[in-house]
Amino acid sequence: MNLERLEQTWRELNQIGYSDKGVMRLAYTPQERQAVRRLAMMCEARGMSVRMDASGNLIARREGQEPHLPAVASGSHLDAVFEGGSYDGIIGVVAAFEAICSLDDEGIVTRHPIEIICFACEESSRFGVSTVGSKAMIGELDIDGVSGLLDHDGKTFRDALSECSLNGWPLTEAARAAEDLKVFLEMHIEQGPVLEKAEIQVGIVHGIAAPTRLQVRIQGKASHTGTTPMDQRQDAFLAAAEIGLILEAAALAEIEHGTVGTVGVCVVKPGAMNVVPDTAELKIDIRGTHVHSKKTVLNKLYAGFRHVEEKRGVKVEWTMLSDEQPVLLSEEVTQSLEESCRDLGISYLKMASGAGHDAMNMARRWPTGLIFVPSRDGVSHHREEYTSWEQIGVGARLLEQEIKKWAVVLDANGQPQREEREKTQPEQMGESA
Amino acid sequence: MNLERLEQTWRELNQIGYSDKGVMRLAYTPQERQAVRRLAMMCEARGMSVRMDASGNLIARREGQEPHLPAVASGSHLDAVFEGGSYDGIIGVVAAFEAICSLDDEGIVTRHPIEIICFACEESSRFGVSTVGSKAMIGELDIDGVSGLLDHDGKTFRDALSECSLNGWPLTEAARAAEDLKVFLEMHIEQGPVLEKAEIQVGIVHGIAAPTRLQVRIQGKASHTGTTPMDQRQDAFLAAAEIGLILEAAALAEIEHGTVGTVGVCVVKPGAMNVVPDTAELKIDIRGTHVHSKKTVLNKLYAGFRHVEEKRGVKVEWTMLSDEQPVLLSEEVTQSLEESCRDLGISYLKMASGAGHDAMNMARRWPTGLIFVPSRDGVSHHREEYTSWEQIGVGARLLEQEIKKWAVVLDANGQPQREEREKTQPEQMGESA
Repeated sequence: MNLERLEQTWRELNQIGYSDKGVMRLAYTPQERQAVRRLAMMCEARGMSVRMDASGNLIARREGQEPHLPAVASGSHLDAVFEGGSYDGIIGVVAAFEAICSLDDEGIVTRHPIEIICFACEESSRFGVSTVGSKAMIGELDIDGVSGLLDHDGKTFRDALSECSLNGWPLTEAARAAEDLKVFLEMHIEQGPVLEKAEIQVGIVHGIAAPTRLQVRIQGKASHTGTTPMDQRQDAFLAAAEIGLILEAAALAEIEHGTVGTVGVCVVKPGAMNVVPDTAELKIDIRGTHVHSKKTVLNKLYAGFRHVEEKRGVKVEWTMLSDEQPVLLSEEVTQSLEESCRDLGISYLKMASGAGHDAMNMARRWPTGLIFVPSRDGVSHHREEYTSWEQIGVGARLLEQEIKKWAVVLDANGQPQREEREKTQPEQMGESA
Repeated sequence: MNLERLEQTWRELNQIGYSDKGVMRLAYTPQERQAVRRLAMMCEARGMSVRMDASGNLIARREGQEPHLPAVASGSHLDAVFEGGSYDGIIGVVAAFEAICSLDDEGIVTRHPIEIICFACEESSRFGVSTVGSKAMIGELDIDGVSGLLDHDGKTFRDALSECSLNGWPLTEAARAAEDLKVFLEMHIEQGPVLEKAEIQVGIVHGIAAPTRLQVRIQGKASHTGTTPMDQRQDAFLAAAEIGLILEAAALAEIEHGTVGTVGVCVVKPGAMNVVPDTAELKIDIRGTHVHSKKTVLNKLYAGFRHVEEKRGVKVEWTMLSDEQPVLLSEEVTQSLEESCRDLGISYLKMASGAGHDAMNMARRWPTGLIFVPSRDGVSHHREEYTSWEQIGVGARLLEQEIKKWAVVLDANGQPQREEREKTQPEQMGESA
């Protein structure tokens, strides 16, 4: 792993769309596609075979000695949120590319092919739907559902794809067979404060807490702030306030399981100094990898709805926007990552991911691992997002080591190196002994 | 008091600016001025002398037998909030006009002159400043302060006045001498639910709870909703929620004094489903006629600010937008109104007004009374605002009776009628006995 080269690769890709305000590489925009094409050229220059699937995922392949074997895949995404950061997504792609460069440096041949996958449209910023490319790759993209989605300029998802010349194939063509891949490994910034605060080098993610999201509308009654006695009000803001604090208390009670709950959006109407609010519209986001714990929080929230209805004479209506199940990552891969950390002297923390990632979808079909590197101050999706090169280098070393293990590095005789045999090819131990 | 004629007067004035969406008669707009001119013509047709002061107040005068005596004034306003109701303000003007008509019907001569005052710009909807006309009349309008205020179209207060041809005189000319008026009497809708709920015909207002208003900015820290543990957040919305509930609890504890506190405005930013809110901007309105009680609520609010700062690691900054003192109305007028209610068999409740009114300013210079009639469901400033003609009629009867008392109705010999002598002219009792 050559940290200078890694940084150079990052710089070459990240300059596309970069400005002082943050990175502008929304999914399927000319900026994002230009970055993907640049990556494709870099991979081709290293003799990799490169293809783009129907959803815009770039797949670059370094052939293994046994091309028919399932590939070891690693990658992330190059698209960014509106005025996003310089690390989210891109460092996972860059680290995967650096692993390939390192193998080339050392002249290493692997038994399994290795792929870099750069996923399309991981962020929901443009069309409100996230991890499109990885959903397409596992054949679980709701194609009819996304086709008509509009961006802020009123352009449909279908037209945006069409402008990228990605509409030549049906989107279903992006789905891959189970036997195509052996494992998927992603490196990503944590986007939270845990690693930095604990002064730990990497996170090994054991589960991803897909969000449960609700839209809530509280209907109270507008009245004059001066003339309505305190006990004759139906104040929608105060109902929203209670709901927010009930949700917080419920999540705090589940802190050992890491379940979190947030009111991210609260719009209070009519919003006049002298009118008791009659409406509050909330958007609530609840996440956790512990199914029962998350359910407990949700039930307390529902009880909170009933509580404020009875106490305040308001009406609470809610819609479930999404209710995805937590995804547990492969124990085998997680254990292997832990071993690698010990081998390399890297401090690690097994942790849940509160944010969704392409690894979340890939895990539904293939053994999947996810490595976190620290985010300064927990900031992400913002130009102040930052991870030092030293921190990124630690994650990249771990990723490279793990790719080598799963891809099985061959020695000069075309045989697996001893440690590889022992760890990942136990059935061959007798033969090689 | 002729209720049919009262309703007819109301219809003639309220049709100006009326639509299904509510009444559009913002201060100093062509609609409002047209209504004021219509009223002026109606008054002139009854032989009243009519003038417009520098601030746009209309003053119509029915001469008394002793023109040098201070006048008995009654009125309210014809301007309305954006898409306002059909009763707020206008029924007080109409009832005062109907009292004049009744005196004419009966051929009554009064010792004191009687004035109808239609105040300009009572509502703050256009320029953010309320009761402009009555402030100008008592000489307490901050003329420099209001001149540059902008409406939603960017027009200044000064230019709006100018378009009404009101800029011929300096605004200071609107101020009147203490000896000009004997008493001011206003009838207004309650704008709250108290009278309707208690099934009482009129409210006799003993004090007006001018608002204390604060603008509050809570600065927390934005972070990812999925990746930020519950105990590492600086959630500005939850801080706002706690402040809202602390204010509510503080006001509820003062319910015997009628003090009220409201968060009418709460703007939460950035307002994204997956971002812990970093900013909440509140506007808070606290009212009460009991000075100590109001102070207690305010102190608990300040303690709440400190509490959330310490508990949540947020920063709370606040600005006092206004901190007016409660105004107590004349005990003499209040007692006289109570007597009249008893004489007329009208049920009444002595109560505080949570809303500001022109009477609030007038009370600083002249003995002032304020009569409330019920508001259906407590609704005001909205097209659904409603008071029945029967209810308005009761208030108008009381107003007429009170005007007669203070203006001193003379008998055929030019002497005060007995009951008037006894009640309001005690020093003359010996002479007339």
